[in-house]
Formats: sequence, C-alpha cells, structure tokens
Amino acid sequence: MDKVRKMERVAALTKLMSDRPRHLFSLSHFSELFGAAKSTICEDITTIKETMGHFGLGTIETVAGAAGGIRFIPTVSAKETDRLLNELARRLAEPDRIIPGGFLYMSDLLFTPHLMVKVGEIFMERLAHLSPDYILTVETKGIPLAFMTARAFDLPLITVRRGSKVTEGSAVSINYVTGSFKRIQTMSLPKRALPAGAKVLIIDDFMKAGGTARGMVDLAQEVGAKVCGIGVLVATAEPEPKLVEDYLALLILHDVHEHTKVTDIRPVLTSG
Amino acid sequence: MDKVRKMERVAALTKLMSDRPRHLFSLSHFSELFGAAKSTICEDITTIKETMGHFGLGTIETVAGAAGGIRFIPTVSAKETDRLLNELARRLAEPDRIIPGGFLYMSDLLFTPHLMVKVGEIFMERLAHLSPDYILTVETKGIPLAFMTARAFDLPLITVRRGSKVTEGSAVSINYVTGSFKRIQTMSLPKRALPAGAKVLIIDDFMKAGGTARGMVDLAQEVGAKVCGIGVLVATAEPEPKLVEDYLALLILHDVHEHTKVTDIRPVLTSG
Repeated sequence: MDKVRKMERVAALTKLMSDRPRHLFSLSHFSELFGAAKSTICEDITTIKETMGHFGLGTIETVAGAAGGIRFIPTVSAKETDRLLNELARRLAEPDRIIPGGFLYMSDLLFTPHLMVKVGEIFMERLAHLSPDYILTVETKGIPLAFMTARAFDLPLITVRRGSKVTEGSAVSINYVTGSFKRIQTMSLPKRALPAGAKVLIIDDFMKAGGTARGMVDLAQEVGAKVCGIGVLVATAEPEPKLVEDYLALLILHDVHEHTKVTDIRPVLTSG
Repeated sequence: MDKVRKMERVAALTKLMSDRPRHLFSLSHFSELFGAAKSTICEDITTIKETMGHFGLGTIETVAGAAGGIRFIPTVSAKETDRLLNELARRLAEPDRIIPGGFLYMSDLLFTPHLMVKVGEIFMERLAHLSPDYILTVETKGIPLAFMTARAFDLPLITVRRGSKVTEGSAVSINYVTGSFKRIQTMSLPKRALPAGAKVLIIDDFMKAGGTARGMVDLAQEVGAKVCGIGVLVATAEPEPKLVEDYLALLILHDVHEHTKVTDIRPVLTSG
C-alpha cells in the first residue's frame, strides 16, 4: 500500500514540476499537498531525478536554505536535438516554401506548438548560463518561439512592437535601419515593460543582416536594460559579419535558389 | 525491483504524455521505449490515470483500433480555474494599469507563460466539444494565449496579420471596420495557411465591439474555412450585442474609471 502511495506521489510530482520548468517549488508546498513528511518528498524527488536522468528528460536541482526548494530543469538530449534540427532543416528545404523574392515560408512550423516547445527548451539549455531576467522578442513570427523559451526559463516575455500602440501607454521608441533593405523603421517598448538594470535574452526566428536584433539591443539600452545574449532559429550565412556579435543560431541558411527551387539550409548539430 | 521499474516507467510516461497534451501516442511506441509488454504499459497507464484523476490534474483517453493509442488530457479543476480567474481579475483591476484613453495594460500578464499555460488549458477544456482543426488568432497580444490553447489542443495556430506581409507569399485580405472606433483596417492570411473546409476556433485576448473577431470570421469564410467557436480572455460588458454571437469570455470588463482609477472587472466563475 505504501508503494502505491509513493507511485501516486511520483506521478503527480512529475506532472506538477515538469509543467512549470525551472520554477522553484518549496518542499513544504508538496509536503502539505500530499500529507507526507518533507523527508518522504525528498525520497520521491530522488526517484524522479534518477528516472528523468536515465531517460534524458531532465534533471532536478535542489536549492538549499529557507528560501530554497526544488525545480525541474528539462533537458533535450544531443540525439533528440539533432533529430529535431535535422527535421526542421529538411522541412524548411521543401521546394514549395520558396516565396517570390527568395523568402522562405516558415509560419506553419513557427506556429506548431510541439516543435516550438522543444526549440524553446534547446535555447534554455544552451543559454541558461547567461542568467537572463527576461526574454525579449519583436512581433510577430518569433513570438511563439520566444514564448516557449520564456516558459522553459520560467521568465516573462517582453515583446517589442513595430510602431507605437496606444493601448500600451507611454513607450520608448527608436528608429533603426534594417540591415537587408536599408529601410528606416520604428520599434517601441512600453516604458513600464522592462525595469532598468534587467538582463535580457533576445530570441527571434530569423536573422539576416542583424538590423532588427541591433535595434532591440539599442532599445534595451535606451531603457537601461542589458542584453546578455541572442538566440535565433535561423541565421543566413551571408552577410557576415552581422550587425550584432555573439549570437546563437540553430540553423544556417546558405542559399535559396528561386529558379531551381533548391534551398541549402543546414542544422548546427551538437555532434559537430 | 519490479516495483522500481514500474515507478520509473510511470514517472517517464507521465512526463512524456503531459508534455504533449491530447497527442495520440501508440502503445507500441512506449512498449519499445521501455522494453515492456503492451499489457504492462496499459497497467502503468491505469495507475497514471487514477493518480491524475485523484489530484484533478487530467485524464487519459484510450482510442481503440489499429490507429488507436492513448492521450493525456489536462484538466483544470473548477477550484483552480476560479482561483486563477479571481487572480487575473484582481491584478487587472490594479489602478496603475489604466492607460490614458481608458485602456487597460495587460501585456505583462498576457506574456507570462505559467498564466497563459493555464488559460490555454481552460479554453481547451471548455471548447474541446467543438472539435476544431486549427486555432486562429490575430497579431499581437493574443498570440501567447492562442498558442497555449493550440498546445493544449495539440493543434497548429494560424495567425492573421494586420496588413499583408511579403515574407508569407500570396495572401487573402479583407477590409473590416473596428467596432469601437469605426476605422477601416485590413487583415490578411497567407493563402496556404488554412485549407478549405477546416474548422477553426478563434482565440483572442480582448473583445470590445467584436469587429476584429467579425473580421476573422469573414476572413476564414473567404478561404472556405468555418469558425466553430470564439474564446476571449476579456470581453467588455458594453456594447451588447457584439458583432459576433456565441463567444466564451473568461472575464467581463464592466467599467474603467480613468479619474477615480477604479476598474470593475469580474471573472466568470465556474461556481456561478
């Protein structure tokens, strides 16, 4: 009977913790929920930690002290990462994705939840050492990806708007030059969105010359925040260098041949 | 030893299934993954189903037949739903959210992952009987909420753009009149995004007169799709009736007093 109870606690704990990655849960919280001693919950956590490790699904961190607790950190194995990036590269190279002008249609993939959940976890895993306070992106197509990264980090997402929207109150705006087309555009951020001193991680779906990312870096500086890193799903091989340094790209787009319908896009695999 | 193995399978199965709500997993898939007989996996699933039911976290459906399998369906208990809606109402009534013009600043909540995960699950639970094929929203602020609803349904999200973006290829556009300001605006959808005959569920963050929702209904019809339902996080009490019928709202905004800084917003509680 005791074994069954433990099994129930382990299943429920796994669900509750993996539902909210990186969130710090107190042992007392679970102790009350299950009517079990903290030492018992600790034993359950050890079982879950071993299992998640065994199957490459994640790990559990213990934070000591009065304000401490436990948190689940999802992991995506190197094999699973490479499988996903290969799949994305294969699908992005489909001939009918090429749009007049040499663009790639990516929206269907960018708005598919289970793909972006995984991409968000990959970004979290690779960029967690930067310890951001917020995830920052710009509307529109990068939002699901950035939101899933924010979820994997248990952090809020801040979305920069193109233009200035009246329903968000007073805003800080900057003009920036798109790197690819040399057009002047405006982007803005509600003044209240980002506190001064915050460390932000920029996440976006696509980078060509890096003008948009550069604009976000400048906008963050304008409100006194600091960009600690940049992650993009797809970066083009050319032009190089970009207008920002030190970005992480998961896929590199080398070439789109509009006439032959051949797209050369390559995953940046963990296995090198 | 056998008990330990079962415990490990139960923990891993809980993680894998709850990570992808409503996705149909085949028993063979898990049977291979764990090197266990299908009958054994079935017993594990029964244990998980009982536990999730006991703690009000979800249920597991079994689909019979060759194309069948099992899927996890998250549930949000009535108590948890009411707690969340009360919290959202309380936070949305904070005086400093009122923006000149009588708007409410909602972006911080709309871009907080753990809140939107739950709201998405609530929409899924209440609207699953409509059996949509796609979730539909319009940029920008409703995207995280709609994406989390799409995740809870295991469906793709389609995002209508304001204006027409060159990077998405040929698009169907319509002009619509915003119900509140009587302005003419354009919204568009890439032609390839939505197949004819698809059933779509519209999810958005805010509805006043319903002009934007009406535009999405018309745009869906334009591409031969059918809107089977509409869910919004916040709807205003006035004007009534809206330009669309049969929408589900989780919170009703009765009044925003710009001078007294009092916002009257009320959750639509499950307990009536």
